[in-house]
Amino acid sequence: MAGAQDEIEALIALMARLPGLGPRSARRAVLQLIRRRTQLMEPLARAMAHVAETAQDCPMCGNISLGGLCEICADPARATGEICVVEDVADLWAMERGHAFKGRYHVLGGLLSALDAVGPEELGIPRLIERVRTEATREVIVALNATVEGQTTAHYIAEALEESGTAVTGLAQGVPIGGELDYLDDGTIQAALRARHSL
Amino acid sequence: MAGAQDEIEALIALMARLPGLGPRSARRAVLQLIRRRTQLMEPLARAMAHVAETAQDCPMCGNISLGGLCEICADPARATGEICVVEDVADLWAMERGHAFKGRYHVLGGLLSALDAVGPEELGIPRLIERVRTEATREVIVALNATVEGQTTAHYIAEALEESGTAVTGLAQGVPIGGELDYLDDGTIQAALRARHSL
Ligand SMILES: [Zn+2]
Ligand SMILES: [Zn+2]
Repeated sequence: MAGAQDEIEALIALMARLPGLGPRSARRAVLQLIRRRTQLMEPLARAMAHVAETAQDCPMCGNISLGGLCEICADPARATGEICVVEDVADLWAMERGHAFKGRYHVLGGLLSALDAVGPEELGIPRLIERVRTEATREVIVALNATVEGQTTAHYIAEALEESGTAVTGLAQGVPIGGELDYLDDGTIQAALRARHSL
Repeated sequence: MAGAQDEIEALIALMARLPGLGPRSARRAVLQLIRRRTQLMEPLARAMAHVAETAQDCPMCGNISLGGLCEICADPARATGEICVVEDVADLWAMERGHAFKGRYHVLGGLLSALDAVGPEELGIPRLIERVRTEATREVIVALNATVEGQTTAHYIAEALEESGTAVTGLAQGVPIGGELDYLDDGTIQAALRARHSL
């Protein structure tokens, strides 16, 4: 039937756009999908379509939600007095895997960057300041990568919250210079959270 | 909303079953999908659902088809006098990338293995013998991996076709000992096809 190879090639090209899959591994992945279409390809297509249709940003913290507040913001067991500021959802997931933080999050969606014209407004920092006030936050833990932009953003947030009287802390030992949170093991994240210090 | 994280975790677990993606890279892939849901996740889900629904084995050669004969068997420009025997569809694609073979294929779907109780019947070898007879095939090119099982299967096919009078050849130079076709560059496949020899 005409076009079949084109449709499969189109599927391979889409798969190859995923991080971690090149053209060759995308081809192998698609063959594997077709071989296991009932057990793997159909459930994967359904799960993907469902998440694509329902995923949205949590209006409170910026985490992924499948409708309304995310599971963390909607969980009454999570402390409201502590907010952990992360760059993106991958870092929020890394923090959650550490099982050490029991408060709520604020996802910036990026870092301050003069070069890329990313300012405090784009990162929702005014909204963070507003949350700190209305939620009577005792502590803001700034959990950003130990890169120049991460530390610049952390210091900006510390200064912006100075007159709120809220403690602003940062992750301490365990985050290597230039290292990225999402690649750390769970134990390192736990240690860094325990040893957090005032900024 | 309750269950959102579970649904995303289920999607990650499905993605992690693809070759080339571990749990960590599956997580990164899913985050990337959610970030780019309109440009990437929705088209991918649609393409996957469509291929999952329509993909089937070509009733003639065993290649993947999206309904009826595959594109190669349905193409009147492909020579009917030559059949290239390959282990699986990945190897068929590797041959096609070489652009050197203009005939048709026979996909075995495996190799002879006493250990795994895979005999000639499971590989469709009686059907291959029947095709050689009805299609008046001049040459059967056995393009199997240079492994023990590959070579055992090749010799079995050569013997089974002996009384048909059809030439049975094998890929020659360029296929390294223990090497797998799907990992070869296109030039090597072309050279091996040109230098094919009688089995
Ligand atoms: Zn939230
Ligand atoms: Zn076919």
